[in-house]
Amino acid sequence: MIHSPARCLLATTLLPCALAMAQDDAEVTPNLATQEPRHVILIIGDGMDEQQITIARNYLKGAAGQLQMDKMPLRSAVQVLTIENRQGGKPVYVADSANTATSMATGVVTSRGRISTRAGSTRAGSDDSIKTIVELAAEAGLRSGIVSTANVTDATPAAFAAHINFRLCENPQSMVDVNYRGITLGDCSQHLKARGGKGSIAEQLADSTLHVILGGGRKHFAPQAEGDNVSVSARAQRNGFQLVENTRELEGATPGKPLLGLFSKGTMPVRLQGEDGRKAEEPEPSLLNHLHDYLGDVELPAPMRCEPNPSHAGMPSLKQMTEVALRHLSHNNDSGFFLMIESASIDKKSHERRPCGSIGEVAQLEEALDSALAFAELHPRTLVMVTADHSQAAQLIPYESLFAAYPIPTYTPGMLARIVTPEGSHMAINYATTNFKMEEHTGAAVPLFSNSEGMGRIPAFIQQPQVFDISRDYLGL
Amino acid sequence: MIHSPARCLLATTLLPCALAMAQDDAEVTPNLATQEPRHVILIIGDGMDEQQITIARNYLKGAAGQLQMDKMPLRSAVQVLTIENRQGGKPVYVADSANTATSMATGVVTSRGRISTRAGSTRAGSDDSIKTIVELAAEAGLRSGIVSTANVTDATPAAFAAHINFRLCENPQSMVDVNYRGITLGDCSQHLKARGGKGSIAEQLADSTLHVILGGGRKHFAPQAEGDNVSVSARAQRNGFQLVENTRELEGATPGKPLLGLFSKGTMPVRLQGEDGRKAEEPEPSLLNHLHDYLGDVELPAPMRCEPNPSHAGMPSLKQMTEVALRHLSHNNDSGFFLMIESASIDKKSHERRPCGSIGEVAQLEEALDSALAFAELHPRTLVMVTADHSQAAQLIPYESLFAAYPIPTYTPGMLARIVTPEGSHMAINYATTNFKMEEHTGAAVPLFSNSEGMGRIPAFIQQPQVFDISRDYLGL
Repeated sequence: MIHSPARCLLATTLLPCALAMAQDDAEVTPNLATQEPRHVILIIGDGMDEQQITIARNYLKGAAGQLQMDKMPLRSAVQVLTIENRQGGKPVYVADSANTATSMATGVVTSRGRISTRAGSTRAGSDDSIKTIVELAAEAGLRSGIVSTANVTDATPAAFAAHINFRLCENPQSMVDVNYRGITLGDCSQHLKARGGKGSIAEQLADSTLHVILGGGRKHFAPQAEGDNVSVSARAQRNGFQLVENTRELEGATPGKPLLGLFSKGTMPVRLQGEDGRKAEEPEPSLLNHLHDYLGDVELPAPMRCEPNPSHAGMPSLKQMTEVALRHLSHNNDSGFFLMIESASIDKKSHERRPCGSIGEVAQLEEALDSALAFAELHPRTLVMVTADHSQAAQLIPYESLFAAYPIPTYTPGMLARIVTPEGSHMAINYATTNFKMEEHTGAAVPLFSNSEGMGRIPAFIQQPQVFDISRDYLGL
Repeated sequence: MIHSPARCLLATTLLPCALAMAQDDAEVTPNLATQEPRHVILIIGDGMDEQQITIARNYLKGAAGQLQMDKMPLRSAVQVLTIENRQGGKPVYVADSANTATSMATGVVTSRGRISTRAGSTRAGSDDSIKTIVELAAEAGLRSGIVSTANVTDATPAAFAAHINFRLCENPQSMVDVNYRGITLGDCSQHLKARGGKGSIAEQLADSTLHVILGGGRKHFAPQAEGDNVSVSARAQRNGFQLVENTRELEGATPGKPLLGLFSKGTMPVRLQGEDGRKAEEPEPSLLNHLHDYLGDVELPAPMRCEPNPSHAGMPSLKQMTEVALRHLSHNNDSGFFLMIESASIDKKSHERRPCGSIGEVAQLEEALDSALAFAELHPRTLVMVTADHSQAAQLIPYESLFAAYPIPTYTPGMLARIVTPEGSHMAINYATTNFKMEEHTGAAVPLFSNSEGMGRIPAFIQQPQVFDISRDYLGL
């Protein structure tokens, strides 16, 4: 059914007609010759669940303040889905960044550790690969970009443009018996080029249709590409990418030519750290308290402030990378683009029990979002979404226990950081999912925020693979 | 500006006119003689944060299923606000149910433990009390009701109709030096009637304008009312309340007369429990593991199912109480009503590390929501909101660790429950905020869901006191 203003003038009931027109607008074929092309900017805060957002909000804006994402008109919840690594696998209730990025990149639920390949599939070749939004966009003549503060070969960015069974197969030297100090973690040998595969994640990115790749992970582009006589980065350059490695080169890059920016050996150093590099620490109960829970006392970690991380100096910010990506993707482009931007270390610093690290990376995401929204102001047919891939371990707990009236030493069995906020209060952050050196993820649904382009397109509750559907439909792919 | 269909017929641009008409509808004065009155149903899941909702969804509907609240068209996030107990107090980042219910009932931020009184105020009398939505409704001739699975004198229901400085002053015998085994927890003596106050929470409820009070807490109505020669419940009856104490009496109550239902001595027994009454338990590392983290192994709590709690038998369900409340509130009522419904033990069972208990109480909330939505179907001018007051301790963590490839025993430092879900997977739930016998609350923002009446009235991000503003504005108070 078509509702034109002319037809509506003839209608007797005006409101339904006007509303139908508004709805039809959502279904209209994009990229009409007379209109600007459509763009999708998908911003992923890795591990940025409701606890992380509240912790960051309290620190950055105050308990009663608002983040940029809080000001977005639409807010939904995203059901995170994971299955066992077999066909018809049962649900798994806690995800990792590989399977969640696969959901968002392909619309298909898979198992932990997989990069846009199907759960249960082991063979090389296209049959177990799942086409990504980036590949669909390329087929339709649209550009795509991935920007991350992690290695660009890390799970989240990788899933948008690569296909492999195990996320740690990031470079040609980590394809067979991937191990850590002799502990076998996985194997991707069926994806070796020698066996008809597409090789490691770095090699797949170097051979990809991506127009922009920006982030960390230079070390994964240094090894020689399999079956080639040059490094992966040289191969990328041979494929047409211009390579930049610092902020100056990034800003000087020529629009119109694919751009590969690798700004650090591994994950890009984060913006903030705890005072003197401190992280969450174990409470120290007195000897008497070791004898009985009701006796003695406990020394909690001293309160601390967040401070700039010296290693971050000189790094391009996520905002700078975002702005360059938007400039390059929109340059002489009348077909539209898909851009994924990841603030990766909200998650990584939560694994390491470093709340200041996570807070600084939410701040980075917020600035990148500012740039995305400024772009959308100028280019109104731009759908901006902000979401997380999965929940994380950090919990905001009472600085003064709810049970402080009881004369008993109470304290977390895990690790605690006590942070002095700029508004002069104290925030206690608990990490207590595991005794391992890295915290676990958690399973709660995650938020999704959108600009007004999401209205009528994004329901209040979606499954994570619908992020793919929404992006594809918006771009008309 | 008035937009009538007639004026819109004359307009040249139809869509803005039609949209303006839709907006104007939201601002129209309620309770016009020709229209049905307006109603607000506010459903509070105590402690029902995103983790609790996901845990309950996984168990009740499956990992890919939807709860009733997930199907509601509007979803927002609520910023929980708390301050220190002094005038101009600084922010406190983790709330309790007393100050959060006060936010929702009065629109004012206060300190933990307070029931609709201002932070920092200590004097008896009206000056430190804050008028509640129930009191405003009564002034305007609207009815109100409170329904809870807790004591009706517990913090959440209490804050809608009582004013006192400390939440545990629930009955006339707990007004002076409220203590637990000699440990002083608080004191409300300035609110004694003898000193010009309004007495304990139970006494204030007995003297209130509430039309419906349903829940637990009979023990708080048994003591003699201060300065009276009868018990608090007898006083309530003298004030016009009909008293019911079981399901049969509840169903037989006469609409038109205020209703006080007290179905258990204290908190109403919950619907579900762990197998054989089990709760979360400590992992048991082997002796070797005590010597070194990398050695030995660990015995995790055996997986369990949830089962009916025998003590729940015979209790009216939250749904039954909701339906009776709606029947009584709407009976011969052409002025509208405000109804608060609390599923209280989502929180209480999380404090006790009993995940099955929390899950069953989310199920109870869901059924009550069904009834509220059915009522709203018949009475379209009914705003239904579902929210939580604060976040809680429970975390959904991986059943198989993300780091399972490492040959090291990994386990939570807290308490763990491993639950077999009806869809045949395993869900691991962690409680690790404290070594105390009760878990702490957490500080994350909480969700708010609404039916279509909330569209255009509830932004995507609100401060908790706005729940009061929204209710007041909707009812035209």
